[in-house]
Amino acid sequence: MKPFMDQDFLLETDMARHLYHDYAEQMPIVDYHCHINPQEIYEDRKFDNITQVWLGADHYKWRVMRANGVEERYITGDASDREKFQKWAESLELAIGNPLYHWSHLELQRYFGYTGHLCAETAQEVWDLCNEKLRMPDMSARNLILQSNVKVICTTDDPVDSLEWHKKLAEDDSFPVKVLPAWRPDKAMYIEKPDYPEYIGRLEKVSGITITDFSSLMEALRTRMEFFAKMGCCVSDHGLAYVPCEQVSEAEVDAIFQKRMAGGKVNSDDCAKFTTAFLTSIGKEYSRKGWVMQLHYGVKRDNDKRRFGQLGADTGFDSIGSTGPISELADFLNGLAETDELPKTILYSLNPNDNTAIDTIIGCFQDCSCTGKIQHGSAWWFNDHKKGMQEQLTSLASLGLLGNFIGMLTDSRSFLSYTRHEYFRRILCNLIGGWVENGEYPDDEKALKRIIEGISYNNAMNYFGF
Amino acid sequence: MKPFMDQDFLLETDMARHLYHDYAEQMPIVDYHCHINPQEIYEDRKFDNITQVWLGADHYKWRVMRANGVEERYITGDASDREKFQKWAESLELAIGNPLYHWSHLELQRYFGYTGHLCAETAQEVWDLCNEKLRMPDMSARNLILQSNVKVICTTDDPVDSLEWHKKLAEDDSFPVKVLPAWRPDKAMYIEKPDYPEYIGRLEKVSGITITDFSSLMEALRTRMEFFAKMGCCVSDHGLAYVPCEQVSEAEVDAIFQKRMAGGKVNSDDCAKFTTAFLTSIGKEYSRKGWVMQLHYGVKRDNDKRRFGQLGADTGFDSIGSTGPISELADFLNGLAETDELPKTILYSLNPNDNTAIDTIIGCFQDCSCTGKIQHGSAWWFNDHKKGMQEQLTSLASLGLLGNFIGMLTDSRSFLSYTRHEYFRRILCNLIGGWVENGEYPDDEKALKRIIEGISYNNAMNYFGF
Amino acid sequence: MKPFMDQDFLLETDMARHLYHDYAEQMPIVDYHCHINPQEIYEDRKFDNITQVWLGADHYKWRVMRANGVEERYITGDASDREKFQKWAESLELAIGNPLYHWSHLELQRYFGYTGHLCAETAQEVWDLCNEKLRMPDMSARNLILQSNVKVICTTDDPVDSLEWHKKLAEDDSFPVKVLPAWRPDKAMYIEKPDYPEYIGRLEKVSGITITDFSSLMEALRTRMEFFAKMGCCVSDHGLAYVPCEQVSEAEVDAIFQKRMAGGKVNSDDCAKFTTAFLTSIGKEYSRKGWVMQLHYGVKRDNDKRRFGQLGADTGFDSIGSTGPISELADFLNGLAETDELPKTILYSLNPNDNTAIDTIIGCFQDCSCTGKIQHGSAWWFNDHKKGMQEQLTSLASLGLLGNFIGMLTDSRSFLSYTRHEYFRRILCNLIGGWVENGEYPDDEKALKRIIEGISYNNAMNYFGF
Repeated sequence: MKPFMDQDFLLETDMARHLYHDYAEQMPIVDYHCHINPQEIYEDRKFDNITQVWLGADHYKWRVMRANGVEERYITGDASDREKFQKWAESLELAIGNPLYHWSHLELQRYFGYTGHLCAETAQEVWDLCNEKLRMPDMSARNLILQSNVKVICTTDDPVDSLEWHKKLAEDDSFPVKVLPAWRPDKAMYIEKPDYPEYIGRLEKVSGITITDFSSLMEALRTRMEFFAKMGCCVSDHGLAYVPCEQVSEAEVDAIFQKRMAGGKVNSDDCAKFTTAFLTSIGKEYSRKGWVMQLHYGVKRDNDKRRFGQLGADTGFDSIGSTGPISELADFLNGLAETDELPKTILYSLNPNDNTAIDTIIGCFQDCSCTGKIQHGSAWWFNDHKKGMQEQLTSLASLGLLGNFIGMLTDSRSFLSYTRHEYFRRILCNLIGGWVENGEYPDDEKALKRIIEGISYNNAMNYFGF
Repeated sequence: MKPFMDQDFLLETDMARHLYHDYAEQMPIVDYHCHINPQEIYEDRKFDNITQVWLGADHYKWRVMRANGVEERYITGDASDREKFQKWAESLELAIGNPLYHWSHLELQRYFGYTGHLCAETAQEVWDLCNEKLRMPDMSARNLILQSNVKVICTTDDPVDSLEWHKKLAEDDSFPVKVLPAWRPDKAMYIEKPDYPEYIGRLEKVSGITITDFSSLMEALRTRMEFFAKMGCCVSDHGLAYVPCEQVSEAEVDAIFQKRMAGGKVNSDDCAKFTTAFLTSIGKEYSRKGWVMQLHYGVKRDNDKRRFGQLGADTGFDSIGSTGPISELADFLNGLAETDELPKTILYSLNPNDNTAIDTIIGCFQDCSCTGKIQHGSAWWFNDHKKGMQEQLTSLASLGLLGNFIGMLTDSRSFLSYTRHEYFRRILCNLIGGWVENGEYPDDEKALKRIIEGISYNNAMNYFGF
Repeated sequence: MKPFMDQDFLLETDMARHLYHDYAEQMPIVDYHCHINPQEIYEDRKFDNITQVWLGADHYKWRVMRANGVEERYITGDASDREKFQKWAESLELAIGNPLYHWSHLELQRYFGYTGHLCAETAQEVWDLCNEKLRMPDMSARNLILQSNVKVICTTDDPVDSLEWHKKLAEDDSFPVKVLPAWRPDKAMYIEKPDYPEYIGRLEKVSGITITDFSSLMEALRTRMEFFAKMGCCVSDHGLAYVPCEQVSEAEVDAIFQKRMAGGKVNSDDCAKFTTAFLTSIGKEYSRKGWVMQLHYGVKRDNDKRRFGQLGADTGFDSIGSTGPISELADFLNGLAETDELPKTILYSLNPNDNTAIDTIIGCFQDCSCTGKIQHGSAWWFNDHKKGMQEQLTSLASLGLLGNFIGMLTDSRSFLSYTRHEYFRRILCNLIGGWVENGEYPDDEKALKRIIEGISYNNAMNYFGF
């Protein structure tokens, strides 16, 4: 029996161990998509206790606790931090096979030096140890980032954001890590949202552009993109139920926009048309600027309306939704490619059933403007576990060029999540190491080094051009 | 090479063998969903020969024989039982990788003491052995149940059923196994069926309620639910093409119902609306009563209309169908949750592609009223094989709390099917044992015992409250 | 570590090695579906260099090169063959886990005797070796086929084809391999295609039937089928976005056909109706003739319209599409079965998500007119890799009778692709060998021999009746 999560965790062959320890483990981290708050980095936030770090905003963990029948007061309510931690420890014990089990223990090992396992009985010991450690200076936000060997962080930012914390961080010579904004204009696209007109008002103000139609909306966004670009931004992100491709004229888009701004209601057809026009127009702008377009689709958010009303968004009530006709995704990309304005694009579906279709679609739109121009993004959110990552990697390998994959990101709000890169790299090295051990790829040291270091770090650095 | 299906069948590691033999194998069986005929239990049915037991009503086996080009007279026709058995043996030989191969041999081993393998050459030997054994008193329905260590059986019953055999069994002190009815009101819901009005007439008669509209239909059903509850029923079951969620007013539902009762035709929109209203209304009643709601969806029945016309339903002509927009399933659950009337619910899709989406949806509706309140049901029907069970377990583990899973059921008409619990437990122990051997979960005896015994038996007992 | 792709490539157990080397490897090849040009066989084509053989028409390889950012001039353009080969070698190195990696090296080993691995550094050596070998007489089309132990080849042919090369080959006693036409009437079915009326004109001419309505269209096709049958044809093939099942009267079909022939536009409803009528009518004819109906569905072709405009069809811009409601596939088959006119049928979906549904659907339509009458075709196109084949085999085994599977085909344009049969057989033997080693199927030499030789060769020979 292998010891529990030792240095060779998930590495089942000699080759896997060699590839991980000699190559993957040595590479820095480029975290090109996350939800870290840049203010917390600038202010070098510290944490009072492990509940704050772990359970303050992590809806993955909240879901596990709810699945264990834990009362909400121990999750998001007014129970003490110590009580919440106990409930978490009790729930984690049953989470066998869940990535949270592995993530939590990787974090305990790497940041707190704890090599036991957390359960009801050890909760007090872990609580004491972690909280003592959290008081030490190396456990501040910046030091966690530095000791994780992170070189670049891309946050997730709204077009109206002032990016003040990114600016301050850029001016602060004492912190060598690049903290760059990423452009997420969802609020400018979701015309059906109640606060859409109000949001457009804010966009008018920060951009200085009067927004009266689709064209001036795009002008305002372009103005903000210029500002983001000056702050080092080179990557965008869109959250979508599905990627639509509707036929729509500029006049029709204007009519939809103006109806909505006048307080009118839009139906799902209107939304699909507006989204198509929006993504097409902004995608062309990304192409002009050399930015990367990330499309995250397939989510159905806030399913439990009552709990959403009580707790708000991102509190653990999201699921995989119907991902729409995948054929429209291909048609949407073609719409941009036809005029040679398809930007570098990364596709993420929340539904792993789309893996194969995505891998066949990206293969239709590759070109010589960039190596691996269209990417199948790393296993996302609900797929960010051993099986999910193995399946994304195997599908991509079977249908495309795994060697050009840009690899992992944390997608996290926490400063301890960099161990997810370690988790991914172990799974990657085990997969590739297994193929080599099995005679499916030659024992070609140079090629393997290039592939592993590429997927771990180099490919993303080259792709984004950091 | 491991011997063919020995005591360590499917158990690939020391830990898997330990978990199975020391924990899983020792636990009794609670078979909370099956199609056993309670009259056969009460009357302690005996069987003349193995063809009666195996091929009398088992459309799984019939399909395999048809796939081998066997004439229908050897399947459901007038060939002799011995001839049918020969054809079955010849077909089984080619069913490598099919769960029927394993189920059949588990049954031969456990109930008949036969450790060889059944094929054309051994058919006579097996026929003789089984038939001799079947003449012995320990091979009656009751004794098969008792020697299988079954504690609870939930059958599948229509609201108009008299439950006379359940009553007699409850009164019979000589048989210690609980045989409880389960509530399956499909006939009261499928308004499009030709015999719907006739069925409603029967429901009126047994309930004593005049049914004129949706509200009186529900009243009649509630009356019957009271009766079922008195007989120990605490679980319902619904068979669905997909789980719909349509907006519909009570007036509209009444209109659809009355149109149908007047002999009118209903279209698919009407059906979706009626089904939504029916499930919502009855789901609230389950919540009030503390009953469990089982939703089995994704079937397309009676595909070969000609053969269906000749042989009737449940004769081997069903398939996986389109499972509808999975988003409506989430919306349906939300409809019940919004007023805090969502009962304990078990979701089963016939399409394994839904596994991940289901596991993300159940995570949205868990609450502290019950541990593991919303469950992803065990791999069902066409998925009830090694790969299907591994995938359901792995998906559930990756996205939820496997430790709270309520585990296996037979879904069977046969008294020999309890070996399917063994099959499931072996697969479960092999999966979890593999994780422990691989250092992915600690070698924590207490936690592992709790998880294995829980999924094998305890969780279901607690969940249903037997 | 196993050596790179040695004689035991992909064979992980003793039993797997035994089954492969003693049974599978010894069997001849029947390649019942491919895109080989019969003229090239008749004329015994030779090749100047390896780029001609490998990169002349292989859009699988072109996609991999594009994913590596290679300029189009090195793919389909005017770069020299040597330059193209270099770019291919550089790309292949990154294609770890891709079947092209394995196919390429199997071809290098079996046909060129090269046991190293192709990469940027070895490209010159491989180029020289292959080109020297290609000049030898045993590397002509006929000799490649003969040394691959191929007994039957079914090409893919249009109803208007003269089949002159098939005729010449049949008359040529010096070549013992059967080269039979296969019937692919897509052009007669796709009424939405711009050249449809023109095509119907050609069909009129070769058939001698004046085509004025659906009935005369079918008469013309029947005439051609007679001709194909005389040339030995017994298998058809259809390429479809999805398999539709619309209600449609003969009058309606006539109206759609006549509208189209008059230059009118047809919408997607028209097309679905026409396709249903076409497939139903022609399916009945297959049934009458004892032909096999192959349905290949789930493709979305020519996604990058600009590149399609430049390079034409089959140049690497296809993907998996939406596969339509799978329930219609079942209804379509039922439409033929109801009158007992369902022919032997092989179903292939490009979307592997359909595997389970297909395996449940084929189980509904089996009958005693033929062993394994309805087949789930071998993992197709984008699924033709290790994982794809394992999944197709495992799903088929779990839900049907793997022992009756008709096995592999190349679907290829190349004379070197027969190694794909080897690749498939290795995967098959490894899967089945693993089950036997694991005690999941008995070590029954006779049964295993029958199953392996059956799936490798015998089943297809019996099924098609060559």
